[in-house]
Amino acid sequence: MKLSGLGKCAWNAATSPIRPYGFAARRYGPSLAVLGLSFIVTTAAWAADPLPSWNEGAAKQAIMEFVKATTQEGGNQFVSPAERIATFDQDGTLWVEHPAYSQLFYCLSRVPAVVKAKPELASVEPFKTVLSGDRAAMAKLTLDDYLKIAMVTLSGMPTGEFKQQVHAWLAEARDPRWKRPFTELTYQPMKEVMQYLRDNGYKTYIVTGGGQDFVRTYSEEVYGVPSEQVVGSAGATEYGYDKSGKPQLIKQPKIVLNDNDAGKPENIYLMTGRQPNAAFGNSTGDKQMLEYTKAGQGARLVMLVLHDDAKREYAYGPAQALPDTKVGAFTQSLYDQAKRDGWTVISMKNDWKKVFAFE
Amino acid sequence: MKLSGLGKCAWNAATSPIRPYGFAARRYGPSLAVLGLSFIVTTAAWAADPLPSWNEGAAKQAIMEFVKATTQEGGNQFVSPAERIATFDQDGTLWVEHPAYSQLFYCLSRVPAVVKAKPELASVEPFKTVLSGDRAAMAKLTLDDYLKIAMVTLSGMPTGEFKQQVHAWLAEARDPRWKRPFTELTYQPMKEVMQYLRDNGYKTYIVTGGGQDFVRTYSEEVYGVPSEQVVGSAGATEYGYDKSGKPQLIKQPKIVLNDNDAGKPENIYLMTGRQPNAAFGNSTGDKQMLEYTKAGQGARLVMLVLHDDAKREYAYGPAQALPDTKVGAFTQSLYDQAKRDGWTVISMKNDWKKVFAFE
Repeated sequence: MKLSGLGKCAWNAATSPIRPYGFAARRYGPSLAVLGLSFIVTTAAWAADPLPSWNEGAAKQAIMEFVKATTQEGGNQFVSPAERIATFDQDGTLWVEHPAYSQLFYCLSRVPAVVKAKPELASVEPFKTVLSGDRAAMAKLTLDDYLKIAMVTLSGMPTGEFKQQVHAWLAEARDPRWKRPFTELTYQPMKEVMQYLRDNGYKTYIVTGGGQDFVRTYSEEVYGVPSEQVVGSAGATEYGYDKSGKPQLIKQPKIVLNDNDAGKPENIYLMTGRQPNAAFGNSTGDKQMLEYTKAGQGARLVMLVLHDDAKREYAYGPAQALPDTKVGAFTQSLYDQAKRDGWTVISMKNDWKKVFAFE
Repeated sequence: MKLSGLGKCAWNAATSPIRPYGFAARRYGPSLAVLGLSFIVTTAAWAADPLPSWNEGAAKQAIMEFVKATTQEGGNQFVSPAERIATFDQDGTLWVEHPAYSQLFYCLSRVPAVVKAKPELASVEPFKTVLSGDRAAMAKLTLDDYLKIAMVTLSGMPTGEFKQQVHAWLAEARDPRWKRPFTELTYQPMKEVMQYLRDNGYKTYIVTGGGQDFVRTYSEEVYGVPSEQVVGSAGATEYGYDKSGKPQLIKQPKIVLNDNDAGKPENIYLMTGRQPNAAFGNSTGDKQMLEYTKAGQGARLVMLVLHDDAKREYAYGPAQALPDTKVGAFTQSLYDQAKRDGWTVISMKNDWKKVFAFE
């Protein structure tokens, strides 16, 4: 995904019904065991597949071969464990980004509370329009309007209070199409890739144009990614003391990191000092991260998620337009670069057995 | 330590003679074994001490009790492994900071090469003075002069080239007093604390006012701290392409993170999203990090290194002046805060059996 600065939104996992990721085999293991040896052999073969939600094909094969090449000691493409880094864009790569980034829903949900605290905003745009609930008028809000909303709703509070606000929203909020918590709209095949890479010594990072603080509230529970491995667009904090003299950090309406486009490799370097061995994205905002990853020495895994499954998720970008050639230039150009530079395109429709865990 | 922005310098470990940290017991184990059972029992008791370079006392006890309290499952101060974070200032806390920060020596050493590439600087101050080698004149350079030197010597090159330059310097540079590589002037007792915390599930971070990129070149080999766990003052990088079209990041003369004072807790939060459970410092630049760490719930370990050993290292700050009460106000105030707020002061003279591994 791509979005300027903090104009994005999402949910929390501490209160969500999402369970930690695990293979279905583990759940059914005991009851299957009574069915006899031949069945057990089949089960074992199936359980040994680290990517059960992937169909056989070039994409799955690229992942398996990359892991094999970089973890085989003595091999000429071996990567030492300390240097194994894989980076994942979030919106559109790890979870659904349509019809809007989840963090945007969050920011809109916070407007009434913010206006209650600052009543003077009630008569000021874009807050007036948001409060009106007039969907036609809201559809006309500009990116600049959304940035104003983001700045006001994502700052002014201590960091701990922000975390609680996001948690509370995630527990209640539902997406407009599936009517499920946003945390359930994560792509099961991608969570399998993350786990598979971790099982092979990789540190998995989320590198998102969305708000770093926002994603950190749920990254551990939803993706198994600890907060220190989330790199995102980030606002400043200011150190100070509360009324009782206790130190605290207050979130400021000032952007420190813009984690889109060139900002992605720049911030990966700032936060880790490393060049990733593997990277996953889906939009032009990921272009520089993907090509920077590909430019490193040795085996590299660079993958681009193509949204071509209108039935199970959405079809947009190149996929939507390919049949009649009305292609959005920016996405077609990324798709062309993928072919030219040896990135692997993931077709949601063809490469994924299932999209969501709840299917 | 404390210094504004990037005006600091150091060395590299890939080429240094420092060996990875290990207890002396391991080296002598086999030959000792032949001496019989009673000796083995004694050896085992000694080998089991995770802090062999520490004298018994309040400081060592505080460390041991903190680790016990926070790692005992079921205990009321238990901290889950994912949340175990310990932060260490570098200059004056992990290694010698007198007579000047090592990174400053590095920056000065780069001046001739920079002037060779940009001859117009030869007649411009402060470069003219540095090139003259006139020590009396150099002693009069201001902090602003040093910042100019830092900006010019720490930017303009691809990130990989910078790393090579630091590596080369570290291999050759020697400190003025001990005539040893700077990497050998690390405090053995502090390296033991880092290892002890890691052995108990803590992630150890270096949080330095010095240059993040500089420290990252040697942090893994010297301290066992991977680059992604170094937070420091940092310059921007700019994504671009070299002549062959290959992506690269060029270091810019623009500060993104100033990791001193309030900047320390702010940047710890930016980089990790966490509040440390333990923190170690030695100067006013560490004050906010120490009090922020102490402000968290549950068991907290906050330690202040007091330089009171003129013989084995240096005596300065409160220690130097305590006998005759001519105390530098800023350091005395920090020392007073330590007593008031329950931080533990580490006396180099009394708490450390040895200061350096080479003793």
